[in-house]
Amino acid sequence: MKLYDFTQAPNPRRVRIFLAEKDIKVPVVQVDIAKQEHRTDAFANINPLQRLPVLELDDGTCIAESVAICRYFEEVQPEPPLFGNDPVDKALVEMWQRRIEMNLLAVVAAGFRHTNPYFAKMEEQVQAWGEQNLRNVGTQFAWLNDVLADREFIAGDHYTIADITALCGTDFAKVIKMRPMEDDNLPHLKRWYQAVSSRPSAKA
Amino acid sequence: MKLYDFTQAPNPRRVRIFLAEKDIKVPVVQVDIAKQEHRTDAFANINPLQRLPVLELDDGTCIAESVAICRYFEEVQPEPPLFGNDPVDKALVEMWQRRIEMNLLAVVAAGFRHTNPYFAKMEEQVQAWGEQNLRNVGTQFAWLNDVLADREFIAGDHYTIADITALCGTDFAKVIKMRPMEDDNLPHLKRWYQAVSSRPSAKA
Repeated sequence: MKLYDFTQAPNPRRVRIFLAEKDIKVPVVQVDIAKQEHRTDAFANINPLQRLPVLELDDGTCIAESVAICRYFEEVQPEPPLFGNDPVDKALVEMWQRRIEMNLLAVVAAGFRHTNPYFAKMEEQVQAWGEQNLRNVGTQFAWLNDVLADREFIAGDHYTIADITALCGTDFAKVIKMRPMEDDNLPHLKRWYQAVSSRPSAKA
Repeated sequence: MKLYDFTQAPNPRRVRIFLAEKDIKVPVVQVDIAKQEHRTDAFANINPLQRLPVLELDDGTCIAESVAICRYFEEVQPEPPLFGNDPVDKALVEMWQRRIEMNLLAVVAAGFRHTNPYFAKMEEQVQAWGEQNLRNVGTQFAWLNDVLADREFIAGDHYTIADITALCGTDFAKVIKMRPMEDDNLPHLKRWYQAVSSRPSAKA
């Protein structure tokens, strides 16, 4: 088994944190996106969509998509549960993980990818779309702050994959020069960020 | 229990098809997006993000996000399994469901929402982003056709939630005047579409 990873990208980090929470060790292969190593024919055999991360099993099966890789490990090692405990809890964790992914991580990513010159050579940018997302980022972090007003973690009273996605999204905002975790106007977000970023897994 | 639904929208249909495949009946409440009924304060109490579908349980718990609602029903009634059978299969179904959602359904939706005058009053459109997505739709259906070249269903040899998302995405393309399911250059997609759209659940 091996995990195709790129240390600087937010999505592979989601899997690394998930594995650290489960105390699972997996050999890692670095694929340098900056050097376009994900655009090679060799990597296209691992993931035709040429994205990271990818988990390759010993029989050659390749699982792409961060959440799908996490799901695999949740199934083979259920403890500690990071996708929820019972049918309602599992559904609510999935709801929150998706909301955070689409309304926070994707907004930061679109703002970054569609405006930063670094990506101009890699994809067809739409500047106006990037700018709209950049304008929305503040609203989205204010929303997350409100979500956290009445609960310890994003999906309720226990740490889940939704917190992992939110932590990676919050740290990723540094690339667009935003530091919501230091904003005194977002006290609930700040309290939550201090708790989740001080867990040993956050260093993964 | 009740399901907040809008018959004409693609996401609620995903849940209706899923329920039909499981032979589960749930009372339905129509929320007319065209009349902006999802923008009322009453509906904001059900889903603060004001999106459909939402499942309200008897204790008042509200589960939003199509896939999260489907997950709930998979947990309370596992048969027939629509999220996969074992850890590897579950991970691959999740991978395919996400790929189809982001690379097909989201592309059609962005093309529609950011270019159609109908949405101009409801959200801040970015015409160039809509047009880029409209240009990509053909490529994405060609990709789906290639995916289906060596398998009966999207995630392998059995029908799953990934097929439901793809069916809803393919039918939804009619709103942007595309009918990939009738395109003789996409024979695998056509064969798959005939199979999944002739299941009784497709009428849901």
